[in-house]
Amino acid sequence: MQTRRNFIEKLSLSALAVPFLQLDSWGQPKHGLFYEGPVLRVALMGLGSYATRVADAMKDCKKAKLVGAISGTPSKLPNWQKKYNIPASNCYNYSNFDDIKNNKDIDVVYVTTPNAIHHNNVIRAAAAGKHVICEKPMALNGKEGQEMVDACRKAGVKLLVGYRMHFEPNTLEIIKMRGNGEFGKLRFFNGLSGFRIGDPNQWRLNKELAGGGSLMDIGIYSINGARYMLGEDPIWVAAHETKTDPVKFKAGVDETIQFEMGFPSGAVASCLSTYNMNYLDRFYMVGDKGFAFLQPATGYGPIKGHTHKGELSFPHIAHQTIQMDEMAGIILENKNPIVAVDGNEGLKDLKIIDAIYKAVGTNSKVEVSL
Amino acid sequence: MQTRRNFIEKLSLSALAVPFLQLDSWGQPKHGLFYEGPVLRVALMGLGSYATRVADAMKDCKKAKLVGAISGTPSKLPNWQKKYNIPASNCYNYSNFDDIKNNKDIDVVYVTTPNAIHHNNVIRAAAAGKHVICEKPMALNGKEGQEMVDACRKAGVKLLVGYRMHFEPNTLEIIKMRGNGEFGKLRFFNGLSGFRIGDPNQWRLNKELAGGGSLMDIGIYSINGARYMLGEDPIWVAAHETKTDPVKFKAGVDETIQFEMGFPSGAVASCLSTYNMNYLDRFYMVGDKGFAFLQPATGYGPIKGHTHKGELSFPHIAHQTIQMDEMAGIILENKNPIVAVDGNEGLKDLKIIDAIYKAVGTNSKVEVSL
Repeated sequence: MQTRRNFIEKLSLSALAVPFLQLDSWGQPKHGLFYEGPVLRVALMGLGSYATRVADAMKDCKKAKLVGAISGTPSKLPNWQKKYNIPASNCYNYSNFDDIKNNKDIDVVYVTTPNAIHHNNVIRAAAAGKHVICEKPMALNGKEGQEMVDACRKAGVKLLVGYRMHFEPNTLEIIKMRGNGEFGKLRFFNGLSGFRIGDPNQWRLNKELAGGGSLMDIGIYSINGARYMLGEDPIWVAAHETKTDPVKFKAGVDETIQFEMGFPSGAVASCLSTYNMNYLDRFYMVGDKGFAFLQPATGYGPIKGHTHKGELSFPHIAHQTIQMDEMAGIILENKNPIVAVDGNEGLKDLKIIDAIYKAVGTNSKVEVSL
Repeated sequence: MQTRRNFIEKLSLSALAVPFLQLDSWGQPKHGLFYEGPVLRVALMGLGSYATRVADAMKDCKKAKLVGAISGTPSKLPNWQKKYNIPASNCYNYSNFDDIKNNKDIDVVYVTTPNAIHHNNVIRAAAAGKHVICEKPMALNGKEGQEMVDACRKAGVKLLVGYRMHFEPNTLEIIKMRGNGEFGKLRFFNGLSGFRIGDPNQWRLNKELAGGGSLMDIGIYSINGARYMLGEDPIWVAAHETKTDPVKFKAGVDETIQFEMGFPSGAVASCLSTYNMNYLDRFYMVGDKGFAFLQPATGYGPIKGHTHKGELSFPHIAHQTIQMDEMAGIILENKNPIVAVDGNEGLKDLKIIDAIYKAVGTNSKVEVSL
């Protein structure tokens, strides 16, 4: 667990360390400074903008290190090798990727490809005996997700999902307060997730690659957020779709979905998933005895948390840095995260997505069994 | 229209006026100080806590004056006569109330009785030739509402609904900004209306008197708010009910309803109506070019408005004071309010309430035609 104290200690160490910095060949602080434990050796698969963000964030990791790259566009590899000091022997394309099974220098493959090929890539990585981290949504639907969970279990490798908010300190503080009963009986979660998407030609707006629209990208934050904020899983969903721009958002690519969820305790959630609005990114939770909100709740920048007791205040560290250090602990040391990030967690969100699309299609409330 | 400048002028006048205050027999500033125009003479019907709030707020009105009282519990009348200096000749009970037609000293009856008797009381007041102000919801359903609108039209009297937020300066400033295109194309309204209701024996929790539950009391604020914030009327609704306490919230009395609305422009609304949560009372609106929120949005205390341009700042004046002064202008001077408050406005909300209850009952999206 990343506590506030850990952060302060980490910051203090960094400050102390500056005069004695040992720089590596890229001019970066030497990896694992003041850390003597095991290091997770990561290969990134799918070298798009998110992979770059993860790679940059990993420069500050203590327990995880980027050592490999796998691309369907192998012309990207030389730049990655140079920028991140990756040896040629740890670079793969989609044809020779299965050979990674013979590579003793890579522990885990982190899949950041378009959604539609998560399923195949995760199963290939597992078959090669590598642990797998997969970006969210873990797959296109629950059926695929179940097959991925089963494949990883069979292969004896761990499957984690890139839920970076599960390690974010404002979020974890609210979850801790909830556990202490500080909000009383929880009643309501309001999640507003969305942004106005740009380039109409990107893979996220291609049904074949994305498997859907906003719900498969940004909406999943409200689905998952409702669950980790309230601390329970929904038993029903209802959902309504609105499309104002059928040229940009083609058939099967949802522009805006409003969805509601009901939970065993009687708590309810009202959520928005959209590719057509800015000024969102807010989670709000109401209990008998208090409230909490996160705004921004899931953006890449600093998260702001507030409760009925006041504002939370944690220093911002790139979420992907914390995530990868914590995932190293989970994979190498069998640590248990506060909020699960394994394949079953990803599968639950996929089953809810299935139910939301079904509710949109049938215009009716749909029961969910997770 | 109550502009910011009006407020400042009013405040300045009050400040200036202090040394020269003429006090009336109750020690209050003499009614209509510095105002020479016509004054609306009001009789309140249904002397519960809300009537007391209106009566107290009217002490500060310039254009409206409390002159009469009508009660189904006539033992309340002596105290009201004394407290608000009401002559016995302007007091009625439910038996002799129709005699008000012969009273030349009363212009309007303000109905603040339980919802179930709005219909009959408004029709009686209209038949007596009096203008009518009716608390919201105007009636139990659209059919009743239509009959009330028709009765008032036939009697040649005005029917207004107690929409106090339609005169609230933060709200009106946002509506003005919307009219100027400052939010761009509107996309989304999020309305969270609710509170934890106390005494289980009050009329608001009695289906026969209230006609429903939270939606008939607090939820109507989000219905109405969506319309005045977005500036259009919905074409569909969907809704889902959750009940955690069937003892307190009996059959037909809704505890919590989540509802969604779609508008002709493509904008959508997600709303919450509840009698089982505090920490709500928030309106949030998102457009292409900016956002606005009101929090508190509808409480009796100071309203706080914010937009992408910053915080709004208006001095707090009791909403009922402003409402009654503005309604005097509408009734006596045929002024047009910025946001309609007439019977047709009340009727639209009733038709939406009908559709929401239908959507809950049928578990399906319901089209609305207003």
